Amino acid sequence: MDRHIYPNEAVWHEQHAAQADRWQAPPIVEELKAKAREEGLWNLFLPASELGAGLSNSDYAPLCEIMGRSFMAPEIFNCSAPDTGNMEVLVRYGTPEQKERWLKPLLAGEIRSCFAMTEPDVASSDATNIECRIERDGDHYVVNGRKWWSSGANDPRCRIAILMGKTDPSAPKHRQQSMILVPFDTPGVEVVRPLTVFGYDDAPHGHAEVTYTDVRVPASNILLGEGRGFEIAQGRLGPGRIHHCMRLIGQAERALEAMCARAHARVAFGKPLAHQGALRHEIARSRIEIEQARLLVMEAARRMDAVGNKEARGLIAMIKVVAPNVALAVIDRAIQVHGGAGVCQDHHLAYAWASARTLRLADGPDEVHLESVARLELARHG
Amino acid sequence: MDRHIYPNEAVWHEQHAAQADRWQAPPIVEELKAKAREEGLWNLFLPASELGAGLSNSDYAPLCEIMGRSFMAPEIFNCSAPDTGNMEVLVRYGTPEQKERWLKPLLAGEIRSCFAMTEPDVASSDATNIECRIERDGDHYVVNGRKWWSSGANDPRCRIAILMGKTDPSAPKHRQQSMILVPFDTPGVEVVRPLTVFGYDDAPHGHAEVTYTDVRVPASNILLGEGRGFEIAQGRLGPGRIHHCMRLIGQAERALEAMCARAHARVAFGKPLAHQGALRHEIARSRIEIEQARLLVMEAARRMDAVGNKEARGLIAMIKVVAPNVALAVIDRAIQVHGGAGVCQDHHLAYAWASARTLRLADGPDEVHLESVARLELARHG
Amino acid sequence: MDRHIYPNEAVWHEQHAAQADRWQAPPIVEELKAKAREEGLWNLFLPASELGAGLSNSDYAPLCEIMGRSFMAPEIFNCSAPDTGNMEVLVRYGTPEQKERWLKPLLAGEIRSCFAMTEPDVASSDATNIECRIERDGDHYVVNGRKWWSSGANDPRCRIAILMGKTDPSAPKHRQQSMILVPFDTPGVEVVRPLTVFGYDDAPHGHAEVTYTDVRVPASNILLGEGRGFEIAQGRLGPGRIHHCMRLIGQAERALEAMCARAHARVAFGKPLAHQGALRHEIARSRIEIEQARLLVMEAARRMDAVGNKEARGLIAMIKVVAPNVALAVIDRAIQVHGGAGVCQDHHLAYAWASARTLRLADGPDEVHLESVARLELARHG
Amino acid sequence: MDRHIYPNEAVWHEQHAAQADRWQAPPIVEELKAKAREEGLWNLFLPASELGAGLSNSDYAPLCEIMGRSFMAPEIFNCSAPDTGNMEVLVRYGTPEQKERWLKPLLAGEIRSCFAMTEPDVASSDATNIECRIERDGDHYVVNGRKWWSSGANDPRCRIAILMGKTDPSAPKHRQQSMILVPFDTPGVEVVRPLTVFGYDDAPHGHAEVTYTDVRVPASNILLGEGRGFEIAQGRLGPGRIHHCMRLIGQAERALEAMCARAHARVAFGKPLAHQGALRHEIARSRIEIEQARLLVMEAARRMDAVGNKEARGLIAMIKVVAPNVALAVIDRAIQVHGGAGVCQDHHLAYAWASARTLRLADGPDEVHLESVARLELARHG
Repeated sequence: MDRHIYPNEAVWHEQHAAQADRWQAPPIVEELKAKAREEGLWNLFLPASELGAGLSNSDYAPLCEIMGRSFMAPEIFNCSAPDTGNMEVLVRYGTPEQKERWLKPLLAGEIRSCFAMTEPDVASSDATNIECRIERDGDHYVVNGRKWWSSGANDPRCRIAILMGKTDPSAPKHRQQSMILVPFDTPGVEVVRPLTVFGYDDAPHGHAEVTYTDVRVPASNILLGEGRGFEIAQGRLGPGRIHHCMRLIGQAERALEAMCARAHARVAFGKPLAHQGALRHEIARSRIEIEQARLLVMEAARRMDAVGNKEARGLIAMIKVVAPNVALAVIDRAIQVHGGAGVCQDHHLAYAWASARTLRLADGPDEVHLESVARLELARHG
Repeated sequence: MDRHIYPNEAVWHEQHAAQADRWQAPPIVEELKAKAREEGLWNLFLPASELGAGLSNSDYAPLCEIMGRSFMAPEIFNCSAPDTGNMEVLVRYGTPEQKERWLKPLLAGEIRSCFAMTEPDVASSDATNIECRIERDGDHYVVNGRKWWSSGANDPRCRIAILMGKTDPSAPKHRQQSMILVPFDTPGVEVVRPLTVFGYDDAPHGHAEVTYTDVRVPASNILLGEGRGFEIAQGRLGPGRIHHCMRLIGQAERALEAMCARAHARVAFGKPLAHQGALRHEIARSRIEIEQARLLVMEAARRMDAVGNKEARGLIAMIKVVAPNVALAVIDRAIQVHGGAGVCQDHHLAYAWASARTLRLADGPDEVHLESVARLELARHG
Repeated sequence: MDRHIYPNEAVWHEQHAAQADRWQAPPIVEELKAKAREEGLWNLFLPASELGAGLSNSDYAPLCEIMGRSFMAPEIFNCSAPDTGNMEVLVRYGTPEQKERWLKPLLAGEIRSCFAMTEPDVASSDATNIECRIERDGDHYVVNGRKWWSSGANDPRCRIAILMGKTDPSAPKHRQQSMILVPFDTPGVEVVRPLTVFGYDDAPHGHAEVTYTDVRVPASNILLGEGRGFEIAQGRLGPGRIHHCMRLIGQAERALEAMCARAHARVAFGKPLAHQGALRHEIARSRIEIEQARLLVMEAARRMDAVGNKEARGLIAMIKVVAPNVALAVIDRAIQVHGGAGVCQDHHLAYAWASARTLRLADGPDEVHLESVARLELARHG
Repeated sequence: MDRHIYPNEAVWHEQHAAQADRWQAPPIVEELKAKAREEGLWNLFLPASELGAGLSNSDYAPLCEIMGRSFMAPEIFNCSAPDTGNMEVLVRYGTPEQKERWLKPLLAGEIRSCFAMTEPDVASSDATNIECRIERDGDHYVVNGRKWWSSGANDPRCRIAILMGKTDPSAPKHRQQSMILVPFDTPGVEVVRPLTVFGYDDAPHGHAEVTYTDVRVPASNILLGEGRGFEIAQGRLGPGRIHHCMRLIGQAERALEAMCARAHARVAFGKPLAHQGALRHEIARSRIEIEQARLLVMEAARRMDAVGNKEARGLIAMIKVVAPNVALAVIDRAIQVHGGAGVCQDHHLAYAWASARTLRLADGPDEVHLESVARLELARHG
């Protein structure tokens, strides 16, 4: 990190600012990816698989936290969302053909992918609301729908979408949905526009609104079979959520470091900010919140390793509430200590805050996870 | 607002997106300004002055709140920061020549202005830290320094800066500073770059970093005399702060409306969000916080009208803490209810949040105002 | 207050500690009541009535706040709950005979009263749950039920209860309930036990659990008529709630004073606590919260005066949430600054906290009031 | 717990209410102590010692948490403060004679003890403030001072105090203090009064104010030697603090159970409280906070076991802030769900809250621990 990542963050920004097309990854990315792959620091996220580094969730957690400290690091080690989640889906549920065609280049970092689930017109926190249609037509499926927050879909390297839609709206609620592989160059796939996150377009990665109009894909592109979409979503979301949380701990740690450094360096009213009692309490609270959040994430990782994602769902729900909120609180305090520098492009803080804010919504809003925790708790005392 | 402002927000964005130079105001702005001026809805902010509408702070408060609801409204009625504060400074402290030259076109909305106080290299929350130099040289002053967060300085209509700097670093702490008028076309004034607020550049208004290199201005451009900078700053900041707070109440109200509308419209897990108990409590809390914040702002306005800005400084400090924090809390809850739509360009919420966040820093961070309130309180019981 | 109340708080405690029966008011009470009555500082609470001081809610608010500062003051001025609420009920809804028999001695401070509504076996936050029966039997009603939190019922001066119960369980939900006057010496009325509030028994006033077993009272004791209980409760609760809130502001102010005094007086780690930045922020926050709470209470009082209790119900619900929570927060901070002294009998703080805590429950828990505010708000945007 | 403790809580209260002298332990206590000792569930707290159960901090933590669930349990297993801390002091720093005379009967549960540190006249959060004098006079020391919050000193079984005072006020700040054993029947020791905690006197244990007037004790009663008081205090406080925290987790768990049970059982507005969304979120938050608090306490225990109390001081400071605040928050929510029942003697909640509140002050107030955490954190980035 100290040698290859942090010093290259500025390089990334310079290259990106200099190039004509902001929807192109700066050259430093592929350069560093090559180095990482050479060093074997590659695909660290894949648990219990020969395809990745073979790390358990507990093993991966501290590494993921470290990568989370830098906006650019996860991609360098081929550990960035949504590709990680998509690769896991393919590892678990893909046919040999699907793996050969899509998993292999993803594992090699040659292409990227997106996950097409959320829709603009319905409350996607309740996945049964999803309206996109996947209809069988001979040996093809025809996809029609509008998706948004398809992160990464703006990137020209994005070649494949895992899309969720309804194959049978008349089936029981949790059997209506299926997942299907949609090659991104299929006619009818249109990237409508990039969405912004508090003013950031996250280029070249981006968050896209994408329409699917009469998109025909081979029937063999279905994942696991019709009506299995919910099941796959459940399997996919556990690891995805905990990875987000690990990265958020990293973000919070980096913000706290920046906060302390600033407190030492800045002088106001005759003394360094670090001497101000109220600020010291804020620093202490930040440290305490981070420690607790990390311990909870580690506990969730251990449970996932020990009893599986499903049994650990209570803890996963908890960390999905805790980690973004702690990160936001710590980053916000760090911003406050930095004054105007904290909200602008001179520090990573404003961008880190904006990214963390989306994680109180993505993969289920806080409210849905609190409800899960409550349901489990009330059941224990029912 | 219903006829001329809200429906034209989209027009503003379309025009702005369509034009080649994003640092140019869209035509709709001058069009609406003309209408507002015709209707006499112009310069409403100026209290106790024949130059403005002659409204007291209490009279102006509800109007300012209403204008605050829309990002574009204050400028339309020639009531937008930092021009309002700069005009007040000129009304109070300007010479007849200064008024003729700068106040008149500002009041007419023909030019715009910026306020050059904050510096990147020092903690500007403590104004005695300011390092910019204003040195006498014959019948000129020579200005050297680096300022940032000069809001509006990117706008080509910005013609004049009110700049704070040190004329005499050896004077007693509160007599070292002076304010001077710097015409923006003076050689040596360089707009270095626009600063972003989270990812927004606030074009065409913008927040600029500006360097002043051997900038020579006539000695008559000094305001009130050497060493009076602090005094002017105190006089300027009271009204400026309360205007910000009034606008923030408007922002919070609009966010709460959006939150309720969304709660009625969206269905998840079989019922409208408006039926969810936890969300209802959030709505109630938002209403309660807004009511309290508005009452405090109104109380501050009444006190300013009755006993002057200086005597009302305790209340002004209180509202400067309360209003941004309430607005941020309410807007954040509204964002949460909107899901992904809340953080992107489809709603005014993300931008409103980012703007409100800067107001926990601008014109003094929360911490400085809390300290003022504490000092007054402890003195009462000393 | 300075001459007669504060210095006599210790006298009250000494007398109370010295007397054999703790359920007897210390002599200082009647002594001071006589003085207050002489001075015309008596029954200040009754709005729009010749029977009281004729003060509006807005007029009464600052006086009630002042009385609220001392646990013993409200009774001295014949302005203490639940008598005030009961007197208002009698003024509004009592027959001439009822007024002569019960209102007169209450106004004279000769007897005291209780309000028998809450029941131990049901969630009384939902008044339709109430199970106590009031059954007609010839020209009497027979009351059977168990009530608790009948504040003041332990006091031997308590002579009358206003009791709520069901006259017709088969009527529409809000017409089942009636209120009836139950003289406390009627056979079948049994004070079972005093309830404690945290560890305080609030003697001699107390909070009683009372059983009513075949209690026969004349039919003329019914208030307003059968099925009108809900209507009376609504009328009674508005003023009662705002009086509680006014007194809570007084409690909070006194706690903040104590907090500042302690901060000046105590030295730790080489400097007075008043120099600690974090504590200063706590003091500032307390001041800000109190100001806002008071302004909201005053606004509610003004609305009640202007448009009546029913139209002001939104504001009343708001203050009923705000005032206890603000008082609790401020008192808790004051306790913290006082260390061990803050939780024990040496300061009024621990008792003030415990009393304030009950007011997040009494007259409707926070949750019910938040729900009312939410309902009104959502209806505005429906 | 299910067989011997919970069902006997009511017995305890009945026996205590029935006996003439409330400063006498009810018979059930010694009865259960005998049983516990027989079963070998005795002195579980003593780490790394043959005298106790030989459990590490990590081993003891879950047991201590379970005991903490009941106000009466810790004493039954001879694991109650302040005896545990005092026994540890004697184990570590006592001479063979001191151990024989005082440790042995304490370990046997035959006598009890108190810890005399805090003083009413100074801010004892800063231990250098302590004014009590311990003066050498021949082969005796003479103690003069006033102490309070000597918990357990009201209990007639209390036979020994470990007292902190100044032997040499002219020594360097951290060498002025010493600790000495003061047999409680020594002439000049006077228990002045019991202190209340939010109205509770905690009889028969109690929190006493005690004066020491020319109290002569043999010179051999000094612990570790003159000027070692600070050192002993540091050694004593680590384990004492973590035990408090473990017990608080137990309190919080029990409160959450009560909260859930109540939510299932009570019906308001037509449905069980357990169906109310806002309450469900409160339950979820409580579960999340407890999990995090427990993990932090366990982490502190592991660190203490691995690297010693001194190296673990950062974590100990963190849990000392977290555990009481989490317990208070959870208990407060449980109180709110219980309505009036929650604040009175019918539930353990009000008492649990009051006890937990003292632990934001005892063994160092939150502010002191936050300061410790901040100091360590800022030093890492210095």
